[in-house]
Amino acid sequence: MATNPEELPLVLILKPFPSIPSFQEKFSNKFRSLKGTDLSVPVSEFFRKECQSVKALVCGAKFALTKDILNCLPSLGCIVLTCVGLDNIDLDECRKRGIVIGNAGTVYSEDVADFAIGLLIDVLRGISSGHRFVRSGLWSINTEFPLGSKSAYGLSLNSLGTESLYFEPLSGKRVGILGLGSIGSEVAKRLEAFSCVISYTSRTKKPSVPFSYYPNVIDLASHNDILILTCSLNKETFHIINKDVMSALGKKGIIINVGRGALVDEKEMVRCLVQGEIGGAGLDVFEKEPYIPEELLEKDNIVLAPHVAVVTVESYSALHELIISNLEAFFSNKPLLSLVKYN
Amino acid sequence: MATNPEELPLVLILKPFPSIPSFQEKFSNKFRSLKGTDLSVPVSEFFRKECQSVKALVCGAKFALTKDILNCLPSLGCIVLTCVGLDNIDLDECRKRGIVIGNAGTVYSEDVADFAIGLLIDVLRGISSGHRFVRSGLWSINTEFPLGSKSAYGLSLNSLGTESLYFEPLSGKRVGILGLGSIGSEVAKRLEAFSCVISYTSRTKKPSVPFSYYPNVIDLASHNDILILTCSLNKETFHIINKDVMSALGKKGIIINVGRGALVDEKEMVRCLVQGEIGGAGLDVFEKEPYIPEELLEKDNIVLAPHVAVVTVESYSALHELIISNLEAFFSNKPLLSLVKYN
Repeated sequence: MATNPEELPLVLILKPFPSIPSFQEKFSNKFRSLKGTDLSVPVSEFFRKECQSVKALVCGAKFALTKDILNCLPSLGCIVLTCVGLDNIDLDECRKRGIVIGNAGTVYSEDVADFAIGLLIDVLRGISSGHRFVRSGLWSINTEFPLGSKSAYGLSLNSLGTESLYFEPLSGKRVGILGLGSIGSEVAKRLEAFSCVISYTSRTKKPSVPFSYYPNVIDLASHNDILILTCSLNKETFHIINKDVMSALGKKGIIINVGRGALVDEKEMVRCLVQGEIGGAGLDVFEKEPYIPEELLEKDNIVLAPHVAVVTVESYSALHELIISNLEAFFSNKPLLSLVKYN
Repeated sequence: MATNPEELPLVLILKPFPSIPSFQEKFSNKFRSLKGTDLSVPVSEFFRKECQSVKALVCGAKFALTKDILNCLPSLGCIVLTCVGLDNIDLDECRKRGIVIGNAGTVYSEDVADFAIGLLIDVLRGISSGHRFVRSGLWSINTEFPLGSKSAYGLSLNSLGTESLYFEPLSGKRVGILGLGSIGSEVAKRLEAFSCVISYTSRTKKPSVPFSYYPNVIDLASHNDILILTCSLNKETFHIINKDVMSALGKKGIIINVGRGALVDEKEMVRCLVQGEIGGAGLDVFEKEPYIPEELLEKDNIVLAPHVAVVTVESYSALHELIISNLEAFFSNKPLLSLVKYN
């Protein structure tokens, strides 16, 4: 039974997200969309004039849903996120107003875990830097490069003259995971196949997992060679990786961040990396994206990615289905499929 | 009981290999070494004059042990390799003379498997190319990059204008392993944790493994998204990845080579990559190292490494122990620890 398009529920789309043609068609058969990105008027005016009746919106990680914005949306009852984290939302305001929130659930978990492992192998084994070495034509001049690592032989055998921690095996490494949720668990599953020794920190000890639990992140750091950050960013986890944690991790320690930039005191991390107080980093997220501290750009023990750990064909496809299902649930007065309990 | 250094067995060292000070000391307490790299005379003269009494030698992958060289070593009874493959040795000559050969055994297997997974995630998820994108400063100009993949959305959303297969998930991919030996088995173990569907080709079906077996490499290619080459190079496997195999692998197919360059018809692979007949490659080995075909250097769906998959602190340390143990075994008339049956 065809519905009059004017009678379809209105959904505000804030910030674009990648969309497959088949999704757009499916979406427009079920909802009218008001696009916050096609603004020909200032943002505040747009919200005041156009959004009074908006009951649901779709929003990504990079749009700040501040109290001011939420105040312009008096009818809002539902936020559907294209991301997992809620750090871009004024949750106090949402709580007061009883707004329900659905996030990306677990659609990204496997891809983010894969990416974390990719970053880690790259930092340990110098894949990006080896690729640059080959591309630059240096291999045919300096065939010594493959022979060794400064840390192993007490000599800088590679021509890059870096202090990098090249050529460390992953097998047997002690890896501490910060936040053993959906992503962290997928990371752990993969690391087990690499014969890593896994431990974790989370709000509470998880009775069903075989890994060592450290309630304290400093203890986690001091007992591990590698820290992988997969937890959400909130007041408790802001700058949780601070100077003391990095000091506990130590000179050969590696940080992999696929969570949020502000989990780490970035300024302090830059200092630790530059001064060799930690050994390396693989970073998909940064405090002020797309800004990246210049000191990070040229070091061979640092691998940088432009916040793409979530990005694959399959994860987007699954996300699209979830967005539609969440909105359908909301407009049918049913619980969201990926409802977040943020109270 | 101290031995007169002059009475220690003589070992010829051909081509240097990375060596830890503690190894050098241990080695020189047990053997006299004649270094083929400290040559102040032409090679042939060195072999004729200095090597008549040499019974054992240590040699890497990059020194060709030809019939001519072997003819200069009339007393040779044992070759200890720092590599796994025997493709640099005239095996017919060794067979005739009853020379025993010990290779690197399984000391590299885990590290090579880790590296193969690292290359694969890099090709699928664009880690090296993302890193270059960030380094170049393009992220702050073109924040579209993270949004998608040409293959997914029918649009080139990234500024690099490539045809690359960015942003494909590893989970669920069908991976065919060529040669399910020690390295291939470690690769399979890791891929299982990424929820890949694994199959393999080897000389014989292995009754104890749960993966599908294809006796024919064309069948392996046509049933898989990814081929990982871990087998040894010999007459049967030379250019085993030829035009027909790449055609069977198809436009989205990826080749990961951590075996030997000449397993692949490199000229044909370059053509297939350039013309988009296969989707990407992660290559640690090449036909004429350190020469790399220029066409491979600038493509974002190709990740290149300077033959370093074996190189870590731990693998070298294990190798050093194995070299000494093999030589001790030979000079005590015992079987080598990592004896290769090459007949």
